[in-house]
Amino acid sequence: MPIRLSNLFLRTLREDPNEAEVASHKLLLRAGYIRRAAPGIYTWLPLGLAVKNKVEQIVREEMNNAGAQEVFFPALLPREAYETTGRWTEYGDNLFRLQDRKKADYLLAPTHEEMFTLLVKDMYSSYKDLPLCLYQIQNKYRDEARPRAGLLRGREFVMKDAYSFDVTDEGLARAYQSQRDAYERIFTRLGVEYVIVKADAGAMGGSASEEFLSPSPIGEDTFVRSAGGYAANVEAVKTPIPAALPIEGQPAAVVHDSPNTPTIATLVDLANEKVKRAEGRSWTSADTLKNVVLALTSPEGKRSLVIVGLPGDREVDAKRAEVAFAPNDVEPATEADFAANPALVKGYIGPVTDGVKVLGADSTSKIRYLLDPRVVDGTAWITGANIDQKHVFDLVKGRDFDADGIADIAEVRAGDQAPDGSGPLELARGIEIGHVFQLGRKYAEALDLKVLDENGKLVTVTMGSYGIGVTRLVAVLAEANRDDKGLIWPASVSPADIHVVAAGKDEEVYAAAEKLVAQLEAAGKTVIYDDRVKVSPGVKFGDAELIGVPQIVIVGKGLEQGEVDLWNRSSGERRAVRLESALAELV
Amino acid sequence: MPIRLSNLFLRTLREDPNEAEVASHKLLLRAGYIRRAAPGIYTWLPLGLAVKNKVEQIVREEMNNAGAQEVFFPALLPREAYETTGRWTEYGDNLFRLQDRKKADYLLAPTHEEMFTLLVKDMYSSYKDLPLCLYQIQNKYRDEARPRAGLLRGREFVMKDAYSFDVTDEGLARAYQSQRDAYERIFTRLGVEYVIVKADAGAMGGSASEEFLSPSPIGEDTFVRSAGGYAANVEAVKTPIPAALPIEGQPAAVVHDSPNTPTIATLVDLANEKVKRAEGRSWTSADTLKNVVLALTSPEGKRSLVIVGLPGDREVDAKRAEVAFAPNDVEPATEADFAANPALVKGYIGPVTDGVKVLGADSTSKIRYLLDPRVVDGTAWITGANIDQKHVFDLVKGRDFDADGIADIAEVRAGDQAPDGSGPLELARGIEIGHVFQLGRKYAEALDLKVLDENGKLVTVTMGSYGIGVTRLVAVLAEANRDDKGLIWPASVSPADIHVVAAGKDEEVYAAAEKLVAQLEAAGKTVIYDDRVKVSPGVKFGDAELIGVPQIVIVGKGLEQGEVDLWNRSSGERRAVRLESALAELV
Repeated sequence: MPIRLSNLFLRTLREDPNEAEVASHKLLLRAGYIRRAAPGIYTWLPLGLAVKNKVEQIVREEMNNAGAQEVFFPALLPREAYETTGRWTEYGDNLFRLQDRKKADYLLAPTHEEMFTLLVKDMYSSYKDLPLCLYQIQNKYRDEARPRAGLLRGREFVMKDAYSFDVTDEGLARAYQSQRDAYERIFTRLGVEYVIVKADAGAMGGSASEEFLSPSPIGEDTFVRSAGGYAANVEAVKTPIPAALPIEGQPAAVVHDSPNTPTIATLVDLANEKVKRAEGRSWTSADTLKNVVLALTSPEGKRSLVIVGLPGDREVDAKRAEVAFAPNDVEPATEADFAANPALVKGYIGPVTDGVKVLGADSTSKIRYLLDPRVVDGTAWITGANIDQKHVFDLVKGRDFDADGIADIAEVRAGDQAPDGSGPLELARGIEIGHVFQLGRKYAEALDLKVLDENGKLVTVTMGSYGIGVTRLVAVLAEANRDDKGLIWPASVSPADIHVVAAGKDEEVYAAAEKLVAQLEAAGKTVIYDDRVKVSPGVKFGDAELIGVPQIVIVGKGLEQGEVDLWNRSSGERRAVRLESALAELV
Repeated sequence: MPIRLSNLFLRTLREDPNEAEVASHKLLLRAGYIRRAAPGIYTWLPLGLAVKNKVEQIVREEMNNAGAQEVFFPALLPREAYETTGRWTEYGDNLFRLQDRKKADYLLAPTHEEMFTLLVKDMYSSYKDLPLCLYQIQNKYRDEARPRAGLLRGREFVMKDAYSFDVTDEGLARAYQSQRDAYERIFTRLGVEYVIVKADAGAMGGSASEEFLSPSPIGEDTFVRSAGGYAANVEAVKTPIPAALPIEGQPAAVVHDSPNTPTIATLVDLANEKVKRAEGRSWTSADTLKNVVLALTSPEGKRSLVIVGLPGDREVDAKRAEVAFAPNDVEPATEADFAANPALVKGYIGPVTDGVKVLGADSTSKIRYLLDPRVVDGTAWITGANIDQKHVFDLVKGRDFDADGIADIAEVRAGDQAPDGSGPLELARGIEIGHVFQLGRKYAEALDLKVLDENGKLVTVTMGSYGIGVTRLVAVLAEANRDDKGLIWPASVSPADIHVVAAGKDEEVYAAAEKLVAQLEAAGKTVIYDDRVKVSPGVKFGDAELIGVPQIVIVGKGLEQGEVDLWNRSSGERRAVRLESALAELV
């Protein structure tokens, strides 16, 4: 049966709704694909549901082709397993928690590692049962702080999540590759542009991890790539560690007065004015060591400070810091933090005062001190003397100061060298549409998923986790395929194959259109048929452009000459063909 | 691709799992269709998911054929709309409630009347947009006090819920009939036995309401039917009200001592011993009026008492009482309730003491007093005198006592007359599989869903609500189609069309089976193929019986004679056919 616009549950909007920020969101609302039910929570109208189902079906087919088996887990789950792995707490405010009538704790699952692990433990016990790959396409819940851009970042959303189970690391690597290949097929079939970038496993634990990003100016993820083929999420970029420099022969550290230098720029100006540099070069912000005080809040709510020293020409990247200090929340230290730590001289913080260590776990302040990877032994810095209005020059790492470890949280900049030596990096924005992880044995260990190996010995299973944002993909597809008139779906996910417009008032037009629609459907095509008698051709054309089926057929004025118009929504090309040959062209 | 048992995520169980009570639940667990994740919350394994999908697809097709359009609502919903209609409170403990990170109230929807109403209000504004029927197939949540029998009464479950929108009552009646017809087609296609019974609309509000029950000894619903065609849920049975009797000429009420008569039986014995009856007949419990004290708790938690007078030969039916007093909870009054109401003389409660009214809203006790419909004017009763150890005889309704209204909550008994005069009732048990309601204007009024009529006047829309328990149907089908060996699915919902067993160790067996499977699949059949080389034929046959695909093919010993066995799972018939003709018979 065709979808008839005379009775389709649809009301297209001429105006952009106030609630929508990005183009795809506006168009999905205007064209009647979705409606908002609550922040980040959407209702799928008939056209939207058709697109969502097509995306799901492509994902399902490629999962099945990759040998994964479909199951379906509850969304409402008891606390226990998530407590065991620590995620009940680690998820913080992002987790929807509730209690049932017996006051037992439940959650709305944001992802199902725990449950898949327990299910396999329940069912399987031998290496012979493996490898195994399971998946589901299911509603997930995440209480995002800032739900955004309609389906792009929702609080209730559909994900395909798959999990692999193997005995050996090689098995896991094969499963990972198999899912990765399936993802490439899926995104290719969907017609979505994507980049595979190295990712940080973050709160998910595990080792190898890659993200599939769809490049887009509205993307929330920044990624880098080099001409030589390196690509990574900025959170995953590991700054190359330069070789250490010789300490011998370096000038001694000297403290200088530095009044009114609250910023790196004023400090550099003062340095160039007052302190001649041995080599004759001028000082730049890259010669300064900025000590940034961060406050970490653990999932249990415990607050602690950490200080990170990084070259003065770099800022802290909030997302890289978040990943580096996960599962803690990270924020800049507040006035209250400084008040509680009088050892820190704000604006003049430095690792040593008169040769006495003031930053570091074993220092007088007892505050953990970490350094940017570029701050290697033998490098000399201008940094705070931890005395008001004084800085120290030529403070040499490894000679004059040291730290508790490395914090690789400085911003990544265009022009930085790729870690693999493949050349300078460029930055771009993307939307995460898929993620593949080698989880390893973290969940299996926590939940005791073991099988007997060939020698009858119990071994812990190794797992992978593979996600695709199904509803997010609908937004990504809409965002990438549109113009100022409306949506332009790729054929693979269009709500129908063909949109037939009966343009006119004569009965002959409707009779001819009705016949064409029946023939198209008989040939296996799905059809949206605009059979609204009292609606003008102009409005019908506008709705066809807004709805965005890639192939439009107009049955109208040309009918007297025995012709219909074929209208390509994407190219805009519109040409008359004989009614008889229209069918042949379209099927 | 066939489902290969060599790698299907399946582990059949020989033993009945402890958690399961009813046969279908045991078999669904043993045959690897589902697994419990929490009380009343289940995970669908690959075979179970296949059956669930088939049920959903049949429901979907018939909904579409009936002109209903599919949409998909969130499960996680904000409180507001449910607050407006009162259901946020009325649902009591059955509703899963939670708060998001901003402390806003949310619920997991048990049903979506409110959201559909608001969606139509958002999209439509004219009578020309109607009639409209929308549906979804979606996970629902209800925090059942007693989740039961696996999928039969779950806390997370799939429902198809449909809603119709019309301007006129006639339109609603047509929509209702159209859904009712679709339900008949659905249950017929599924091969489910069903009875359509009158139902009480209960907490859902509205007028006409029918339930589709599948007769089953494990059903939780009791229904009645007469040979003349009457059928109703016991909650919906309206007791016929007998004609009033003449009051004139009846003997005067007399109080008698009645020591040690705490029960109806002891009271009847005493009456027959001490008090001669005018007509010479003996007294029976039907001559006594039992006054039952019930405690009602409103959704807001307010507790109040009500007393119901009913013939002594009838008990209060808890479910009928629940419906009659909805949305209140109902329970027998406690000792504390009696202590708080010293006007009630326990064991001897009656409506009057020495001609003074003691029960009723305007009586000394101020406790509301309701009567069974059989207690009509002119009927005479033995009942408590509300004095310790005393009863009153020949207390005549309409002369000596009266009440605040009717409470039709006495048990319905086999042999009772059908309300429509179609003969005596018989009782049976059933499982509710569908429910059709004429909601009327309750939700549209509460949420202000109005459209302009032909005269440009705003009119309130009238609605219907139509539900099918999809996951419950899987249990009903399993319960009705099984034997002591396992499940026996109807072909319409079987996880595969054919189960091919390669029975033996020879390579030829597997080669022949593999070829047959490929041919069956090429002919459009779905196949489970037992290709496990190291598993004995006996175990394979047992698994085939347990899994329950209706058509089994055994490729084994007969192969030397060029034959395979066709095994009908339902009849048990097993016969050899030529390999060449097997294909022709099966497709």
